[in-house]
Amino acid sequence: MPYSREAISRIAGYVPGEQPQGQPLIKLNTNENPYPPSPKVIEAIRNFDASRLRLYSEPSARMVREAAAKVYGVDAGQVICGNGSDDLLTIALRTFVGEGEKCAFTEPSYSLYPVLADLQGAVRQPVELDESFGLAADAWKQAADARLFLIARPNAPTGNSFPIENIRSICRNFKGIVWIDEAYVDFAEDNCMSLVNEFPNVVVSRTMSKSYSLAGIRLGIAVSSKENIFEMNKVKDSYNVDMVAQYVGAAALNDSEYMRANAVKIRETRQWLSKELTAIGFNVLPSETNFIFAQPKHDAEMVFKTLKERGFLVRYFKLPRISQFIRITIGKREDI
Amino acid sequence: MPYSREAISRIAGYVPGEQPQGQPLIKLNTNENPYPPSPKVIEAIRNFDASRLRLYSEPSARMVREAAAKVYGVDAGQVICGNGSDDLLTIALRTFVGEGEKCAFTEPSYSLYPVLADLQGAVRQPVELDESFGLAADAWKQAADARLFLIARPNAPTGNSFPIENIRSICRNFKGIVWIDEAYVDFAEDNCMSLVNEFPNVVVSRTMSKSYSLAGIRLGIAVSSKENIFEMNKVKDSYNVDMVAQYVGAAALNDSEYMRANAVKIRETRQWLSKELTAIGFNVLPSETNFIFAQPKHDAEMVFKTLKERGFLVRYFKLPRISQFIRITIGKREDI
Repeated sequence: MPYSREAISRIAGYVPGEQPQGQPLIKLNTNENPYPPSPKVIEAIRNFDASRLRLYSEPSARMVREAAAKVYGVDAGQVICGNGSDDLLTIALRTFVGEGEKCAFTEPSYSLYPVLADLQGAVRQPVELDESFGLAADAWKQAADARLFLIARPNAPTGNSFPIENIRSICRNFKGIVWIDEAYVDFAEDNCMSLVNEFPNVVVSRTMSKSYSLAGIRLGIAVSSKENIFEMNKVKDSYNVDMVAQYVGAAALNDSEYMRANAVKIRETRQWLSKELTAIGFNVLPSETNFIFAQPKHDAEMVFKTLKERGFLVRYFKLPRISQFIRITIGKREDI
Repeated sequence: MPYSREAISRIAGYVPGEQPQGQPLIKLNTNENPYPPSPKVIEAIRNFDASRLRLYSEPSARMVREAAAKVYGVDAGQVICGNGSDDLLTIALRTFVGEGEKCAFTEPSYSLYPVLADLQGAVRQPVELDESFGLAADAWKQAADARLFLIARPNAPTGNSFPIENIRSICRNFKGIVWIDEAYVDFAEDNCMSLVNEFPNVVVSRTMSKSYSLAGIRLGIAVSSKENIFEMNKVKDSYNVDMVAQYVGAAALNDSEYMRANAVKIRETRQWLSKELTAIGFNVLPSETNFIFAQPKHDAEMVFKTLKERGFLVRYFKLPRISQFIRITIGKREDI
């Protein structure tokens, strides 16, 4: 019999996208940015005094919070940093949902959400997206008595966004915390950041992994009321963001222009790829992210395998409703 | 009413040791190493190709696990890495203790243990150390029906170790997981690593923060049976150790000689400081760590405040049994 508690021993665990080591594949499977991080980041690492690593990092990642506050137009006291936004999502579950309580999340969406619910011993409360993967203004009714409602906007892996008025209606009517996961928002038309000052129950999270090209440094940022941030700070590990990540993150945020220029290029490539795939018979969903979700004419799993054999790694999900799609990260045009 | 669950809203949260920003204090309060990390670490950062940060890190921190396996004489499959050993302790609670179940820990010990129990909604089961802060061979009886027993060996903040035969007796008789937190073990006479292959219910954790001078990079390592590691891997965030930490950690482990040479120097300074403090009337506890725990002739809180005014930051705990002690990190001899 395992020593782990039953909630853990019965689950399989989240399987992250393949990270091939040393193979000559073109990786279009985990939504990494094809462009390197800002030159300011490269410089920050080159100038980093490694002898300082003997000391602990500043516990609240203040330099990152201050840089983020400036970019997002909020107060630094409204910001919490995580070891990637996955860390923040873990903190969300642990702060807001007790064992046996309900955690709502849109479906299909980020496959980590139900895993985190399971790990907390919470009850999954999936909220089904409509036939075109949209989220209705009254979706809060399906989330009803959950303590937390996780919404990725734009959504993954479908790539589409939801009307901001629908989100506003959900925030107004849902009784628990509405967590808007904006991991991909820098590739989208609009964002929900202003909702954190409009409603007391809203958290907006961002990640440096995608638009800022910093998947390897693990830095996520969440914004909410000071009260909610205070509670989440109790749950986070004291020194959850290391010293290098703090320097790198602040440098990247202070050079958001560079990020935005890359996002423009990625959107252009996305538009081009969507057109090309449509021309050869794919059903391409509208995307506001750095990937597209597309239904090939032939069996999606077979297309996934064939692409892999030819050196292109994309993502395939053998799950209800989406098993006939593949998800392709927008790389550089020449790679695609 | 806060949105957080009751287990969270009612607690105050762990308060980490002060990290003064930019003040000219001599920091002897958070058990940091006075020596810089290995030259191999400095080199690893200098040679790090920052453009690779656009990619995710290897999820299992394989290069660190392999380096650690070599140093500890175990299989790499018996190793899990954390974002600091605090991350691993959080994983321990989440893997092995359900809400309402018991978590045992020695007392006095690392003040994070009861906080982590609270965060998980677990029931605290303190196991009192004896009058000289020792741990008896039958201490497992006090831990009785707990799922997890956290033991720091050597202990913090008292600095002493416990006879390995007592630990062995606890491992043999306790029904749940015995977690031996060896954060300070590189400054001690012996260690418990061999117990992980002797008993199925033992986890030994280490940190790179103290002996390897890498508090700022956040890297902890735990070793156990493959079965226990499998369960803990379900709970950890997929990419919990960032790419820089992996390079730095592997470089440091591969140069353990450098670490050991520093540990020898710190032990010499510890011996010298203990003698000097004893000579001026302190009651100095025997230490197997990089700090000493000492009882001044005068009120400990006053001594703590006076030292701070004079530019020396040590750690003071206003807690039962230890409120008449101060904890002094072993710095360089010239700083002390």
